[in-house]
Amino acid sequence: DMAVRHYTLDFTLSTPVDSASVVPGLVSIFHEQELTETIHDTNGHGYLATFIGKNGRLVILRVHSHGLVTIDLQCHEDDNIAQLDNVSDQELPALVRGAKVDRYWPTADGRLMEYDIDEVVYEEDSAYQNIKILHSRQYGNILVLDGDVNLAESDLAYTQAITGNGRENYTGKEVLILGGGDGGILAELVKQKPKMVTMVEISFYRLCSVIDGCKMHMRRTCGNTLDNLKGDCYQILIEDCVPLLKKYVQEGRTFDYVINDLTAIPISTAPEEDSTWEFLRLILDLSIRVLHPKGKYFTQGNSVNLKEALSLYEEQLGKLSCPVDFRKEVVCVPSYLEQWVFYTAWKK
Amino acid sequence: DMAVRHYTLDFTLSTPVDSASVVPGLVSIFHEQELTETIHDTNGHGYLATFIGKNGRLVILRVHSHGLVTIDLQCHEDDNIAQLDNVSDQELPALVRGAKVDRYWPTADGRLMEYDIDEVVYEEDSAYQNIKILHSRQYGNILVLDGDVNLAESDLAYTQAITGNGRENYTGKEVLILGGGDGGILAELVKQKPKMVTMVEISFYRLCSVIDGCKMHMRRTCGNTLDNLKGDCYQILIEDCVPLLKKYVQEGRTFDYVINDLTAIPISTAPEEDSTWEFLRLILDLSIRVLHPKGKYFTQGNSVNLKEALSLYEEQLGKLSCPVDFRKEVVCVPSYLEQWVFYTAWKK
Repeated sequence: DMAVRHYTLDFTLSTPVDSASVVPGLVSIFHEQELTETIHDTNGHGYLATFIGKNGRLVILRVHSHGLVTIDLQCHEDDNIAQLDNVSDQELPALVRGAKVDRYWPTADGRLMEYDIDEVVYEEDSAYQNIKILHSRQYGNILVLDGDVNLAESDLAYTQAITGNGRENYTGKEVLILGGGDGGILAELVKQKPKMVTMVEISFYRLCSVIDGCKMHMRRTCGNTLDNLKGDCYQILIEDCVPLLKKYVQEGRTFDYVINDLTAIPISTAPEEDSTWEFLRLILDLSIRVLHPKGKYFTQGNSVNLKEALSLYEEQLGKLSCPVDFRKEVVCVPSYLEQWVFYTAWKK
Repeated sequence: DMAVRHYTLDFTLSTPVDSASVVPGLVSIFHEQELTETIHDTNGHGYLATFIGKNGRLVILRVHSHGLVTIDLQCHEDDNIAQLDNVSDQELPALVRGAKVDRYWPTADGRLMEYDIDEVVYEEDSAYQNIKILHSRQYGNILVLDGDVNLAESDLAYTQAITGNGRENYTGKEVLILGGGDGGILAELVKQKPKMVTMVEISFYRLCSVIDGCKMHMRRTCGNTLDNLKGDCYQILIEDCVPLLKKYVQEGRTFDYVINDLTAIPISTAPEEDSTWEFLRLILDLSIRVLHPKGKYFTQGNSVNLKEALSLYEEQLGKLSCPVDFRKEVVCVPSYLEQWVFYTAWKK
């Protein structure tokens, strides 16, 4: 592998100190490792030295004037540089940089998370997005769309949350799923013998390659529901949901449940200008219009920490042509590594 | 704050390339930022240059001979160095180094995880361990013992798992809790009107300061159960559980449920020598001996990824003086950021 391991070892000196008193001890450790030293002029911003050793080993030692000591060690993945462990109180797991399989997938609220990914099982660039299915040791296969963790085989909690967490009875009901290309919602609903589930994979957001990838590699999620576009009580339409929703509105057709699984709430906080927000409002408005007066609309929100985006979404809910009430629920979806908000809305 | 922000920006050149063709473009960006360059001799291990700028800014540019380009940027937390964003495909969230409140708490299986911690609400060094309660924006307060995330206020799933996930009826039952100083198990069980819950906080593993910290800062977990050491249907004993268990064995006393909440399975894989394993076997053996013939023993295991440690634990279960059967369950505890194994054992 071509990867580089990057260790960070930091500690804070209990008293702000002249670097002269801490540096020699550390430097002597690096010299033992046969590292060649360069001392840099920092214009009065503390002590900085770089050390270069065999096999491309690199050490950066900084003593900041306020007492923070940072040590960086870079070495090739199979090089053992662990002898330096004992210089620091606090060593984080090494960053693995440039590996064939990327382990780092930040949360929606921008935090660094290391997954136990060991294989890329599917990858395709569609016209609109990058589709990956990655294998995690603990979560099973994970669908990643444009770098966002979308759903893992472990994530029944997501499907349960976006179908009402067991409080609904789908038997004999008419259900419309917008998106849902991983097949998770469809697979759970058909167990309850609904009258008809219509799932619409809009080509703009998720091309058929999501369905193709998931029916091969996410079978714990979709079961056999994606193997055929028609079943006893369901149909999968591969088309843009906007014209379809408009047609349903014109026909006066209604559904007991509309489940919007298209996309999370945009993080952008300019709902008046942003085209993603505009799309969201359009879908939301049409969805509520095809909802039976006693029906329910389910959708995901976003990370519970993105309070501004969530409030903006709730503002949109207050501005619909057909007034709605809503409630929200915070749910732990295993592979997300952050708490996720789900919404239920219904006509007033 | 004294913290340093450390950005990593990596990309792989599609063809292995002479650094001469990629370096000038990058270097010119750094020169625009008024950074002073030092080029290092790497003994044939690719190109390496360090750049030093104002306010202690440091940039390290490496072009590895196999085509991996790594860029490191270090700056003070309030310094804006984001103009360099566009040099890379893939930028991870910055590592924040030397911050007053540490955000990085690795998983049991050694992966780097960034929490949304914004405050240390309690910290104490007992004779045996370091006790911290940290505030997370999404998980509420989190109890951290010796650097391991122990339980957060969001983690009812832990308490439910270690009490049988709703499959047990505790009404009128005799229950023994070993450990459990955060009060979570106690608070849930007393709702079911057991005959008597005896909770033993062993001083070796968790001193009273755990109880003190939790009764102040983890009230969503413990309710008011820790305010008094005695209630209608419970008592909290502050003592070493080993002599107590031995006394119970001698008296022939039994419990319908024994819940061992002392510690996760040791990660060390030398169960014959390691004193933690020895302690674990002793507690396990005594616990089963005080278990009613139809009783159940609940305990946590460890990360589902630590397969070797889990197998060793299961081996120990097979070697008890009183033979047991067991089952395990994998549970998502929100603040753990990894899937966790729980065990149930009962007498054959």
